[in-house]
Amino acid sequence: MNETVADRTALTEQETHLSESPSAVPGTQRPGGRTAKVRRAVLDATQETLATGGFPSLNMDQIAAAAGVGKTTVYRRWGTPVGLVADLLTDMAEQSQPAADTGTLAGDLRANAALVRETLTDPRMGAVFRAVIAAAACDEECARALNGFYRTRLTEWAPVAERAAARGELPAGTDPLELLRAVSAPLYYRFAITQEELTPADAERAVTTALAAAAAGAYVA
Amino acid sequence: MNETVADRTALTEQETHLSESPSAVPGTQRPGGRTAKVRRAVLDATQETLATGGFPSLNMDQIAAAAGVGKTTVYRRWGTPVGLVADLLTDMAEQSQPAADTGTLAGDLRANAALVRETLTDPRMGAVFRAVIAAAACDEECARALNGFYRTRLTEWAPVAERAAARGELPAGTDPLELLRAVSAPLYYRFAITQEELTPADAERAVTTALAAAAAGAYVA
Repeated sequence: MNETVADRTALTEQETHLSESPSAVPGTQRPGGRTAKVRRAVLDATQETLATGGFPSLNMDQIAAAAGVGKTTVYRRWGTPVGLVADLLTDMAEQSQPAADTGTLAGDLRANAALVRETLTDPRMGAVFRAVIAAAACDEECARALNGFYRTRLTEWAPVAERAAARGELPAGTDPLELLRAVSAPLYYRFAITQEELTPADAERAVTTALAAAAAGAYVA
Repeated sequence: MNETVADRTALTEQETHLSESPSAVPGTQRPGGRTAKVRRAVLDATQETLATGGFPSLNMDQIAAAAGVGKTTVYRRWGTPVGLVADLLTDMAEQSQPAADTGTLAGDLRANAALVRETLTDPRMGAVFRAVIAAAACDEECARALNGFYRTRLTEWAPVAERAAARGELPAGTDPLELLRAVSAPLYYRFAITQEELTPADAERAVTTALAAAAAGAYVA
């Protein structure tokens, strides 16, 4: 358990700073306890590195130093830079905004489109998404992590479609995930593929498209 | 003019192999002449490298060697790996299939969706697209080149919408490029963003979505 041995310049002391308690028993830690703080510091450093230098700049030792966490802790818990990206995406999916409930399908889809557009056009988060999309294009494990991120997000927003169906706003049998993909797809297409500007008009068109296609039964499974 | 000397270990000699003729006068070269052959060899090697190793593996000297072209030619004409990607994308846009003309808007959009799906699910071309999408996420110049590729492709297919409008199949004022983006976006979204399978049913749904939204006026400028 001698995690404090790490002779990088004065890291000897720093190893215990924010590292997991050696005496921690699984299940006994409070949420927001030391394990959570270590994870928060490491994932914040990971996100910052992705935003500024992209996936190729992700280095385990530098993340440990930036997070003020022992190197052995970072290697043991996350293993590789891909492991950091995968856990960051899990965290981002958990932290992301819950589904809107405005009372109408159009209102909820507008809120979703606005959230996607604001995220992608935010300088920091836009850079993070570019980094993980690029990483997913090069690495199978990153691709699986990104797939998991969107599965979580789409599922989180699925009740929007279920509530709309219950209100009679959607044809019976409409696939909630296909409806939600239809809102996101044109925005990500401009952002990551055609490299075009992403305006509020684009978000509105994505909603109009999804609503019209849904009404026509395009997403009936 | 000793063009047959292609001793890879003697690049001094190789400089003239497949390189542009020093005496060539601009405008006097036949299409398919030496300049075109050099470009073809270099772009084929570039595409092969992107397909197998991605953008980070693109190396000017190795491309010159693989193409059997002098290094100075490659450096002079393409400058950097990004220059190679940009010219490859120009070439891919030029070589890509012309717009369909099946007689109906649905038929033409189905042909477009099938072309996009077949390209992205082709092992080699799928890998090339993953590589250029990743490169565009990391590099501004690659992003501009990718933007140019899609601008060319979308413009090439614009007559599909114009002919449909002339036949009365689309509301007056429908933006051809928005209609075509709507067909491609869900396919690229699954391919590059959510990392999901891309089935014929997805291509058909993209067409159904675009047709329904177009009929509802979602793409009227």
